[in-house]
Amino acid sequence: MSIQKPSIPQGTRDFGPAVVARRNYIFGIIRRTFEKFGYAPLETPTLENLSVLTGKYGDEGDQLLFKVLNSGNFLKKQKGDKITEQVTAADLEAGAKTVLPKIAEKGLRYDLTVPFARYVVMNRGTLTFPFKRYQIQPVWRADRPQRGRYREFYQCDADVVGTDSLLCEAEIVLMMSEVLNALGLTDFTIKINHRGVLRNIYQALNTEARETDLFVAIDKLDKIGRDGVTKELLERGFSEQAAGQLFELLAVEGSFTDKLEKLRAAFGAAGVPTEAADAYKGLQELGQVVDFLTAFGFEQFDHLEFDPTLARGLSYYTGCIFEIKINNVNMGSVSGGGRYDNLTGAFGLPGVSGVGFSFGVDRLYDCLDELNLFPESAATTTRCLVTNFDQETMPLLLPVLRELRAAGVPSEMYPESGKLGRQFKYADAKGIPYVLIQGPDERAAGQFKLKDMKTGEEKTLSLEQVLATLTA
Amino acid sequence: MSIQKPSIPQGTRDFGPAVVARRNYIFGIIRRTFEKFGYAPLETPTLENLSVLTGKYGDEGDQLLFKVLNSGNFLKKQKGDKITEQVTAADLEAGAKTVLPKIAEKGLRYDLTVPFARYVVMNRGTLTFPFKRYQIQPVWRADRPQRGRYREFYQCDADVVGTDSLLCEAEIVLMMSEVLNALGLTDFTIKINHRGVLRNIYQALNTEARETDLFVAIDKLDKIGRDGVTKELLERGFSEQAAGQLFELLAVEGSFTDKLEKLRAAFGAAGVPTEAADAYKGLQELGQVVDFLTAFGFEQFDHLEFDPTLARGLSYYTGCIFEIKINNVNMGSVSGGGRYDNLTGAFGLPGVSGVGFSFGVDRLYDCLDELNLFPESAATTTRCLVTNFDQETMPLLLPVLRELRAAGVPSEMYPESGKLGRQFKYADAKGIPYVLIQGPDERAAGQFKLKDMKTGEEKTLSLEQVLATLTA
Repeated sequence: MSIQKPSIPQGTRDFGPAVVARRNYIFGIIRRTFEKFGYAPLETPTLENLSVLTGKYGDEGDQLLFKVLNSGNFLKKQKGDKITEQVTAADLEAGAKTVLPKIAEKGLRYDLTVPFARYVVMNRGTLTFPFKRYQIQPVWRADRPQRGRYREFYQCDADVVGTDSLLCEAEIVLMMSEVLNALGLTDFTIKINHRGVLRNIYQALNTEARETDLFVAIDKLDKIGRDGVTKELLERGFSEQAAGQLFELLAVEGSFTDKLEKLRAAFGAAGVPTEAADAYKGLQELGQVVDFLTAFGFEQFDHLEFDPTLARGLSYYTGCIFEIKINNVNMGSVSGGGRYDNLTGAFGLPGVSGVGFSFGVDRLYDCLDELNLFPESAATTTRCLVTNFDQETMPLLLPVLRELRAAGVPSEMYPESGKLGRQFKYADAKGIPYVLIQGPDERAAGQFKLKDMKTGEEKTLSLEQVLATLTA
Repeated sequence: MSIQKPSIPQGTRDFGPAVVARRNYIFGIIRRTFEKFGYAPLETPTLENLSVLTGKYGDEGDQLLFKVLNSGNFLKKQKGDKITEQVTAADLEAGAKTVLPKIAEKGLRYDLTVPFARYVVMNRGTLTFPFKRYQIQPVWRADRPQRGRYREFYQCDADVVGTDSLLCEAEIVLMMSEVLNALGLTDFTIKINHRGVLRNIYQALNTEARETDLFVAIDKLDKIGRDGVTKELLERGFSEQAAGQLFELLAVEGSFTDKLEKLRAAFGAAGVPTEAADAYKGLQELGQVVDFLTAFGFEQFDHLEFDPTLARGLSYYTGCIFEIKINNVNMGSVSGGGRYDNLTGAFGLPGVSGVGFSFGVDRLYDCLDELNLFPESAATTTRCLVTNFDQETMPLLLPVLRELRAAGVPSEMYPESGKLGRQFKYADAKGIPYVLIQGPDERAAGQFKLKDMKTGEEKTLSLEQVLATLTA
């Protein structure tokens, strides 16, 4: 076994103790919020069959799937097995489409949505609907790593399927604001829109150009601005007049309900048909969400913005769509989601409506870090280091260590005797806030010195007083 | 996108809400115990470079590594990239050793020990030693799936490196017993032995046969019995006399310290040399561990057994070794570990002593399940379902839902109006213990009906009383 310089793959990360503790602080707040709203945990395997994953994320997504080699042997001069066939030189000539199915039938989870849909379909006979689940697990994408983009990262999703009640949308807004408030992120905007509103906007433009081209263009507004979007629309067959009308509609101002009313009037004036059963459904549903929030006594309407420019890409959303922006940090959205009507259709279960959203933990982490919002308690686990004076007296402190732990105080003794300076350095480096010392004098008096590592203050205390201080 | 019947790969599992909650109950107890003893969390990537993994688990282990295809393209008629080279027909002829490095440079984490060693070496400049870490993450093995053996499963490891203090061994016994007690597993045995004791036993046999053959044979005693082990020893060049003497030594009886003394006498009588610095080191260290436990006030010595037959395979252990057996369930060991002297040597950092152990969560789960030891609280998240009478009155209950959640009671409203029977069925299926109802009469009186789903009992209560009941 040769000695080697170890490394980890590009785009992956080790999380040391301090970072794990802080990440767990975020996960804990998200998990407790999901559970408080009745969402139950689901975990799916890391390994999924490629037949489940492929074709669900578009061509680009298929390229980004990590594929796992079959464990049987697919090479010449080796025994084949039931699963895999041998790869031949002719296969190599034929290319990837011929070779891949022979060597890889499994891949790594790419998101939490497709596995959730698969789970719902596989268990539809035993699940109780509406089914509310949350899922906090890593996903993998063979993307080119760059700052803030990893090949292995966590997603935190909550979805409910089997109901089209807008109560779910209202509760998503509540959960979003609850998580952000609990994290101490006060300067946030929850943007909400509805695919039906976008559809009505398209209808109002009264154009022969394609609807999806409009959505794709609007989605880029943040990045390429009004001029860029106009240019793209003109290229795609929209008239100058249509583009102008679009920006008039998107520029609607006022309170949430003001905007709803102004758009309703504008759609009417532009001749958007009112006869269909779902006419102005987007505006109507957004109004219903606001009504539910009002009934809940929601107090953060100033953080909720109806944003008709929000499009959320070309994804499977069909109803309300959401996105959260932290305003005092320069960062993309930290959360997003929306309603979809046919998530499980690809697995043979059509017509199951659902709505869900997801938090991006890496971005939340960076926000908290930049704004210095991690509480001190999130940074360390051990609360007290018991010093190890010498081999003879060290066993005398073990019952004390036991009492500390029994009182729920995470504690440890420095495992080796001597050199108090080294032990203090250890406590310091590990971020342990208290150090307990018992020299000969304290022992004779049945007392202890407790040093507060932050202030440097030392107090001589009884064990009872030590426990009281450390459990405070 | 064609419709397909979805499935998950062999040897993997979906964990539905009830199972996740129960698994989290186990993880929570293990995590809190590790932290109480000053172990800090570490997380390493799922993807490791194959150069890190290969050669660390023996030939069989290398076969069981899941390998991940490079994301670049290694096939003809496609552009190559920096990482991967094209595979040629000649490569196929040459076989796996030539092809694999060209198509896969990453693999899935096989255990938590090698990534830990890699992490320690990569971060040796900034880590504070002794470094105490725990790690609770899944691992993957391309093993043939069978009952109780999965291809994706969790390990829960705690290790400390950078000290040879036996305090760590004593605390491992404390952590083991604390976890089992907290889980309600009362009929357990923590078996402990020392590689030095096995070494002394070998020396006592005064044989020319190989030491490792002795360890391998002893390790099988559980499975093949005394006759099987004897047969194997004779085949490996041990004499009948040596085999007889072995079983005399292994059959030593009495209390922990009795056994230590009897073996010391037997080793002396057999002429095991006493001059070396580490003479009888195994016995001496085991005695020290017992002394530390006594100083701690450890109360479960009846659950701690010095078992000279415990060998723990051919692994990297060099000092104390541990194993836990649950006696009232027919199941292999649920935990094991030991001290090693050169874990980081393969990565260029020799001489770092450490000791660690691991819990097997799947086996613990099965034990608790079989003995019916999961508390009810571990099975559900939502505590109260608020019924949804009709569309008009439903918003009136949203402030109540909000108050329940604000009081920390995980609660949900059935998202659709009507059909109370269906709502009760939902609560029942989801294991929700309480249902809150407000019909016209209760509303008029400013009261609520709270139904206990287990007893069927209904009480008419004020909101204050409801909150008191649900937070009790």
